[in-house]
Amino acid sequence: MTLKFGLLGAGRIGKVHAKAINADLDAELVAVADAMAPAAAAIAAQYGCEVRSIEAILAAKDIDAVVICTPTDTHADLIEAFARAGKAIFCEKPIDLSLDRVKSCLKVVRETKAVLMVGFNRRFDPHFAAVKAEIAKGSIGAVEMVNITSRDPGAPPVEYIARSGGIFRDMTIHDFDMARFLLGEEVAEVSAMASVLVDPAIGTAGDFDSVQVMLKTASGKQALISNSRRATYGYDQRIEVHGVAGAVSAENQRPVSIEVATAKGYTRPPLHDFFMTRYIDAYAAEIAAFIQAALGKAAATPSGEDGLAALALAEAALKSVAEGRVVKVAEVL
Amino acid sequence: MTLKFGLLGAGRIGKVHAKAINADLDAELVAVADAMAPAAAAIAAQYGCEVRSIEAILAAKDIDAVVICTPTDTHADLIEAFARAGKAIFCEKPIDLSLDRVKSCLKVVRETKAVLMVGFNRRFDPHFAAVKAEIAKGSIGAVEMVNITSRDPGAPPVEYIARSGGIFRDMTIHDFDMARFLLGEEVAEVSAMASVLVDPAIGTAGDFDSVQVMLKTASGKQALISNSRRATYGYDQRIEVHGVAGAVSAENQRPVSIEVATAKGYTRPPLHDFFMTRYIDAYAAEIAAFIQAALGKAAATPSGEDGLAALALAEAALKSVAEGRVVKVAEVL
Amino acid sequence: MTLKFGLLGAGRIGKVHAKAINADLDAELVAVADAMAPAAAAIAAQYGCEVRSIEAILAAKDIDAVVICTPTDTHADLIEAFARAGKAIFCEKPIDLSLDRVKSCLKVVRETKAVLMVGFNRRFDPHFAAVKAEIAKGSIGAVEMVNITSRDPGAPPVEYIARSGGIFRDMTIHDFDMARFLLGEEVAEVSAMASVLVDPAIGTAGDFDSVQVMLKTASGKQALISNSRRATYGYDQRIEVHGVAGAVSAENQRPVSIEVATAKGYTRPPLHDFFMTRYIDAYAAEIAAFIQAALGKAAATPSGEDGLAALALAEAALKSVAEGRVVKVAEVL
Amino acid sequence: MTLKFGLLGAGRIGKVHAKAINADLDAELVAVADAMAPAAAAIAAQYGCEVRSIEAILAAKDIDAVVICTPTDTHADLIEAFARAGKAIFCEKPIDLSLDRVKSCLKVVRETKAVLMVGFNRRFDPHFAAVKAEIAKGSIGAVEMVNITSRDPGAPPVEYIARSGGIFRDMTIHDFDMARFLLGEEVAEVSAMASVLVDPAIGTAGDFDSVQVMLKTASGKQALISNSRRATYGYDQRIEVHGVAGAVSAENQRPVSIEVATAKGYTRPPLHDFFMTRYIDAYAAEIAAFIQAALGKAAATPSGEDGLAALALAEAALKSVAEGRVVKVAEVL
Repeated sequence: MTLKFGLLGAGRIGKVHAKAINADLDAELVAVADAMAPAAAAIAAQYGCEVRSIEAILAAKDIDAVVICTPTDTHADLIEAFARAGKAIFCEKPIDLSLDRVKSCLKVVRETKAVLMVGFNRRFDPHFAAVKAEIAKGSIGAVEMVNITSRDPGAPPVEYIARSGGIFRDMTIHDFDMARFLLGEEVAEVSAMASVLVDPAIGTAGDFDSVQVMLKTASGKQALISNSRRATYGYDQRIEVHGVAGAVSAENQRPVSIEVATAKGYTRPPLHDFFMTRYIDAYAAEIAAFIQAALGKAAATPSGEDGLAALALAEAALKSVAEGRVVKVAEVL
Repeated sequence: MTLKFGLLGAGRIGKVHAKAINADLDAELVAVADAMAPAAAAIAAQYGCEVRSIEAILAAKDIDAVVICTPTDTHADLIEAFARAGKAIFCEKPIDLSLDRVKSCLKVVRETKAVLMVGFNRRFDPHFAAVKAEIAKGSIGAVEMVNITSRDPGAPPVEYIARSGGIFRDMTIHDFDMARFLLGEEVAEVSAMASVLVDPAIGTAGDFDSVQVMLKTASGKQALISNSRRATYGYDQRIEVHGVAGAVSAENQRPVSIEVATAKGYTRPPLHDFFMTRYIDAYAAEIAAFIQAALGKAAATPSGEDGLAALALAEAALKSVAEGRVVKVAEVL
Repeated sequence: MTLKFGLLGAGRIGKVHAKAINADLDAELVAVADAMAPAAAAIAAQYGCEVRSIEAILAAKDIDAVVICTPTDTHADLIEAFARAGKAIFCEKPIDLSLDRVKSCLKVVRETKAVLMVGFNRRFDPHFAAVKAEIAKGSIGAVEMVNITSRDPGAPPVEYIARSGGIFRDMTIHDFDMARFLLGEEVAEVSAMASVLVDPAIGTAGDFDSVQVMLKTASGKQALISNSRRATYGYDQRIEVHGVAGAVSAENQRPVSIEVATAKGYTRPPLHDFFMTRYIDAYAAEIAAFIQAALGKAAATPSGEDGLAALALAEAALKSVAEGRVVKVAEVL
Repeated sequence: MTLKFGLLGAGRIGKVHAKAINADLDAELVAVADAMAPAAAAIAAQYGCEVRSIEAILAAKDIDAVVICTPTDTHADLIEAFARAGKAIFCEKPIDLSLDRVKSCLKVVRETKAVLMVGFNRRFDPHFAAVKAEIAKGSIGAVEMVNITSRDPGAPPVEYIARSGGIFRDMTIHDFDMARFLLGEEVAEVSAMASVLVDPAIGTAGDFDSVQVMLKTASGKQALISNSRRATYGYDQRIEVHGVAGAVSAENQRPVSIEVATAKGYTRPPLHDFFMTRYIDAYAAEIAAFIQAALGKAAATPSGEDGLAALALAEAALKSVAEGRVVKVAEVL
């Protein structure tokens, strides 16, 4: 059976998903909606699908599933509407910037028994998935400590910062999800430090561009996250997991792995420029996993609850910075 | 404009090209032919194209280009027929096992001014192409010495060996082409050594499974090739080029780049299992390049003459082993 | 001129220094003292020096400098005595477990204008020193974030733990010094998390075996430290420094850098087993630097004040764990 | 027991051995001889030994062993003289440039039952020794193919070239020995190609600066050697051994293993500048092995016969280049 898709939002990430849907033999892109008519038309032309309104997609008989790539403040409403319409839903993170709104939205999802998957794409990166598989195989024994480095090649425009909910909700949230994914145990405590080192305008907007976070579970497992909006050498994405019997890590990826040796030394090229190139395989695997979930062949993972849990860690990190103390996740959730 | 394709041969490599054609927005797979009806039918079903006879494809008005993946002994005849029919031709290597037959075939190609590209896929590997680009940029100065390591994960069945023309024409030919590609100057002399170390049956069939070859150009540039039909750790494909000002190399590729550290040491996974996974990007780039050539937007490279030159090096290597001496390429060409 | 040495303490680290002194052409080991007569005798026999009492070394005319490798609780008294005796002093870290005692000891050092160098050996590791040199050269621009991983291959006996002052004063203190060394700016705030994951007996003794620490300077520069008393794959010692223009890192070291490739993958040997092998070059360079300082040719670095500052960070980390909050260094110093 | 040494030759390599002897607790440097008085005096002053004539060392009762670092054309005479005097002999390679002279010299060594070890230092490099140990352990199964890359950072002065016996006897000879060491089976056939690419003056002197060599044993095992007198990025020394069950390799070494990442890419420093720094540990281990042999505790390996065998491969390679054919070792030996 082929899963018929409606795509909500034809922006940068919408295009990524359109391409992944088109390439998947189990999926068909039927319609696209976007407030910007030319953006929707471009995708429609490229993949031979229709432009429709969101309302029309909601009512459509020929659409089984939607991918929500609209602005964050529309996510929760759209999830509720499509959950009630009986469509399977893939939603880009975050569901909402407010924990309460996420909770009320997930209540509707539970009541309607809708299939909802949240877009934490990194879980589907083949390298990170292989790290997880080694843990599952027992290669390193019980997990004890996780170290995550995630550095963007550059800071986004300040206007984006303003709408993003801040670095913890926008950027670190991926690392919070990765930490939960790798620790295999819920985080109980959060402590964070934050600075503005890259762009003073980010500070003026009330946000940070350089942060570090410590996490701890109830049993004492630990995780470290290091984030910056600056990395001149490309998109820096590394994870490392230490267990009782050893460690497993995933190194950075670059477009080509050559090396030039001269009197100046041995030089390999910079890393991928950003997530669109670094996680191209992850996005394809993510949609493939969603298709399986929508067809009832697998659980929808990461779930809405995973989205909520990661957002709660962001909330706790913010509170930790504001109050200069360790924050228990139970305080914010 | 979309280039309309006929695929001749629906075997292993035919499937690779069918997939690449289907994924390319500038191409359309219109028809497939194969002596084995079920193989052709499978590809037709998967990509929504027709099954036709080779004759029908030859006569078809709706086909601009063909990809020849049939057995080697049919290549030259098919190239001549399709050249006369005015179709653009992509042909898997080798054009023929006989240098004379290749020469007569290329005469027809020249007379008909057909577009012919030969399938030396490795030139299109992003890593190897990046090595070539560094040379072109002048990063290492004038090229002096090239080292190529190419080891298959295992030996093919002896029946395959028998039809293959032997290891130099079947396996080393890719390295001969790569050496020519990287040296940037024609090879003048060849010396080879060959053993049977992997499978005595290969020796019984009159072939070798472990060979090493030295090449030299008229100006004294050198290249080394090391080949084996055995590599327990995966498909070993490395190149390294030394120039006046430095060196550039491309390392092996593996499906996932993780590392597990335990008391036994630090372990990375084996390499790709073989060419179907190792060169997946190369095959896509190769078809894309052929499309550009067929549309008249670029030269057809590697050309039929490149195919002839690589085959001549294989012939010279064979003669070198037989006679225990350095063979001049001019002796065989 | 040759610097004449008295060695106080003939234990494990005393032997390391005896060897380094003996190998240095600018130094001569004249006498060794140890409460355990056989230990002192062994070193005396090996290097052809005398066994003397500490009192005799203190009074000796033929001794210019001492290396203090006795138990920690004797360090401050010995520093004061030898400072007053006009000898140059190299003392293993820490000067004392009490910040107040360190302060009063350094007062004597200042008053006597004694040369005092503290044993933070890692600053002299050629790899870490090269990282520092790249920062000094401006290769990465102004430093922003430092990441330090330091994992011991195994936990020490619980009796050692009891005397050690705990993991922050015993193990992390090296990383605190390294963070200060690399940040190039004083740390203002400390936040730490600590668990017992390796050995419950360590917890019973009131200590931790797995800790992570965040540091921040007044200008917002950050550092992360990850420590564990467990690393099955050897002694894990890595640093990584991010600046405005790039990053510089030092990788782990192993006794031999070979790689074995089989069907199971590509395996490199485990790392050095511990500091005695990992930092062999660092210990030699450290003594060489001390000799230069004792001869008045260079400043004594790291100084007693560096020892004090690192201990203050340990104190702040302990307080942070106890109180679940960010601790300002000014609170403890 | 301490082995008492006389050092013949106080040049560059003589200094390396003097330092290694001095640092070894089982050895004592008693006397040094050199035609250049100041060179001998310098070593005598540095290590507190006497300057003596070669004749005096030959007659000395207080000398057990000699290290021969004099010009090549004196080696064979000195070996014979010291063999007759009952001293243990360590001689730098080669014993002589003439195979016949080496043979007659070794006859004297056999008749006098002298201990003779030849200076193929690379066998004692910890990394290469670890490769050999993995082979011995069976990690890669029976050896099939060996690949050796050896590139000097620069060409020696033409005057040196003239006395050196040419690149095969001077430089490749180390790789011939390494190939024999790793193959574990005598080489039966040699084929070589040679060019002048680096310095035309080398060609004028009748030598080559860029060579590649293929070796084959009677059972069909193979080895490849790639040599150049040019490597802008440092002293390039790599080996790689392929067996039935896998491969083992030793990578290049550099003084410090740091990496700087900027917008231009990831850069590691150049390699060691040449053999004096690259093989510092090898030279120490080599003398330690010789001491064991001289004390009768181990066999003298590599032996005079190893020296002869490597020289024969050089002779065969020269003949192969001259005659453009595969040369059997039996033809020259």
